[in-house]
Amino acid sequence: MSKSWSQRSQLIESFKVMDLLKHAHALADQGRSIIHLGAGEPDFGAAPQVIEEAKRLLDTTPMTYTPAAGISGLREKIAAFHQQRYGQKIAADNVLVTAGASAALQLTFALLANRDQKILMADPGYPCNRQFLRIVEAQAVSIPVDHEQNYQLTAELVEQHWDEQTAGVLIASPANPTGAVIDPQELANIAATVSRLGGTLVVDEIYHGLTYGAETPSAFSIYTNCIVINSFSKYFGMTGWRLGWLVADASAVAEMEKMAQNLYISPTTLSQYAALRAFEPDAIELFELRREELQQRRDRLLEGLKRIGFKVPRTPAGAFYIYADASDLCDDSFSWCWELLERAGVVATPGADFGEYQAHKFVRFAYTTSLANIDEALNRIEQFVSDTRG
Amino acid sequence: MSKSWSQRSQLIESFKVMDLLKHAHALADQGRSIIHLGAGEPDFGAAPQVIEEAKRLLDTTPMTYTPAAGISGLREKIAAFHQQRYGQKIAADNVLVTAGASAALQLTFALLANRDQKILMADPGYPCNRQFLRIVEAQAVSIPVDHEQNYQLTAELVEQHWDEQTAGVLIASPANPTGAVIDPQELANIAATVSRLGGTLVVDEIYHGLTYGAETPSAFSIYTNCIVINSFSKYFGMTGWRLGWLVADASAVAEMEKMAQNLYISPTTLSQYAALRAFEPDAIELFELRREELQQRRDRLLEGLKRIGFKVPRTPAGAFYIYADASDLCDDSFSWCWELLERAGVVATPGADFGEYQAHKFVRFAYTTSLANIDEALNRIEQFVSDTRG
Repeated sequence: MSKSWSQRSQLIESFKVMDLLKHAHALADQGRSIIHLGAGEPDFGAAPQVIEEAKRLLDTTPMTYTPAAGISGLREKIAAFHQQRYGQKIAADNVLVTAGASAALQLTFALLANRDQKILMADPGYPCNRQFLRIVEAQAVSIPVDHEQNYQLTAELVEQHWDEQTAGVLIASPANPTGAVIDPQELANIAATVSRLGGTLVVDEIYHGLTYGAETPSAFSIYTNCIVINSFSKYFGMTGWRLGWLVADASAVAEMEKMAQNLYISPTTLSQYAALRAFEPDAIELFELRREELQQRRDRLLEGLKRIGFKVPRTPAGAFYIYADASDLCDDSFSWCWELLERAGVVATPGADFGEYQAHKFVRFAYTTSLANIDEALNRIEQFVSDTRG
Repeated sequence: MSKSWSQRSQLIESFKVMDLLKHAHALADQGRSIIHLGAGEPDFGAAPQVIEEAKRLLDTTPMTYTPAAGISGLREKIAAFHQQRYGQKIAADNVLVTAGASAALQLTFALLANRDQKILMADPGYPCNRQFLRIVEAQAVSIPVDHEQNYQLTAELVEQHWDEQTAGVLIASPANPTGAVIDPQELANIAATVSRLGGTLVVDEIYHGLTYGAETPSAFSIYTNCIVINSFSKYFGMTGWRLGWLVADASAVAEMEKMAQNLYISPTTLSQYAALRAFEPDAIELFELRREELQQRRDRLLEGLKRIGFKVPRTPAGAFYIYADASDLCDDSFSWCWELLERAGVVATPGADFGEYQAHKFVRFAYTTSLANIDEALNRIEQFVSDTRG
């Protein structure tokens, strides 16, 4: 096809790590040993109980379209889980089940932002957030943050960057790529500020449950004039099942349900029914054991990276990422990551995938692999750093 | 939440049949016998072979994210299926696997239409098409068609409605709600016209395979400067699995893959792997038997509706719908459908869900239920018509 695409499409970028991953697969095909510290998904998979339940469901349950907002049983389970975790009673009507957090974010921004309106968010951050806004012809305003703000927006920053075209603010906590958990008091301050300015607060809580000592109330339990995004991908280990949800005022849920009917018809049926099983006590117990394992990995990786010469001034309190400042080791983290792959067989994600602010200094390491692999990766990185310096 | 939503969101409508369906479920809960001629999904479900394969896969295959364009094996299988069906060799690079045809349509319109640009399409048509355009701040131009144009656009209509803001044309064949199959020569004429006018042709072929004697080459096999949408939902019976695909020039596929990464991450993993099994000869054989069953149902329903007094001047040659002109039976098909449900326990979809042109005259009947149910439904409709006339 010879024509040019829409301006929107041309502005949307690939993840830069994709080419790196392609090269990693090519190296692996050549027989090279590759350790992945790049993946944004847990290596555990769904709970075995959920998998068994899915097999049973395939024999018993017709996999037809469901209501666009999700099957009522799952909306109820999520509401009950919310109450159990956060001590706040919500109704099934406050829950919209979605085709992954991706769909929840798309619906939220489609609801909130008119064309050319703006949503404030932190740089660094999850790269797709900008694109969900581009699709609806709205825009992200990236606000540079670093370790001094714990990589999170503050009420002051929100106030500074707000203008009459601003429709809202996105907070992610725990955050990707930094693992930073926002202080609940700062979150409350931001909520109050956004409310005073007449916008809507959106809080991405997809890494909730994967925190290591930090206090993480749901934003909705502090302040109901917000939309909270969640997912079965991270804590529940169900990435490829493509299932998420959001919590909001019932009127906002109803409005987004109307859009979801049109844009998605419904989330995958088997994933919805199987996910019911993930809330049973034995499954939750397993997820908590995994969380402990992740905490051990974080500690091991953090200690190792610091020893090698990365700077990580604040211990990341959640998710499964360490966003490490490599500026004492290299000038450009992007080419450093390529060289690390080529010479040491370790995959890590360059900062450039998460924004622009000081991106060339940073590398995201994901601890989504075993302690043994983390140890081996650290050895390789150490050797690589010593070779390239030397 | 007290604020108003985006203009876009306010413009997007629910399917009108949703309230009717809710009422149908309420009546069923009260013990009433309800026959559904409303559902836009086949009653057969996935092939048993696909279900068995899915169970096996759950034990053997990690359900992680896949490439955004789909697993390479499935892209290859779809390319081979295309060649087998249409005699045109295409490559895996021409195929993008998507989260249902919904995602394929969204990506296509996001690729083609700048804000405020227009896509021409037939009224009546699938209601979501308008909304996929609203999401990207573009717009649908609905062109009224009736049985005299076989409910399809013509090259002449395209030319008449084209202006400098027009980015392309959407054809659906077989069409929802009319079951109309476009004449291959007319499709070629439209393709030539769109090309001359500098736009892109999009052809929704999700009901391909479900045709009863009509000739249905893929538009891509006539004319490669187009984007063709397809789905596992209809011919393959996998609605709740949320899997579709599109076929296009490799550069268009690559451009949409980039957007798909950001908007969806990837289609549901289990659905992708299980769908490989749907292309095996024994599964295809089953789908062909189902097609014959659907043809019998169409014939039975069509004959019955005409006997009762509906007008269907052209025999619908595909999909599983009859779009029947009820103007000899009622003034307003919307209230007629409600009364039909209330008094006779039969669900059908009022024309209002598919557009505006003469919508109040029409009712869509879906033959997605058994011959026995169709016979019983016809008896009830006949009785209802005779009672209400009488």
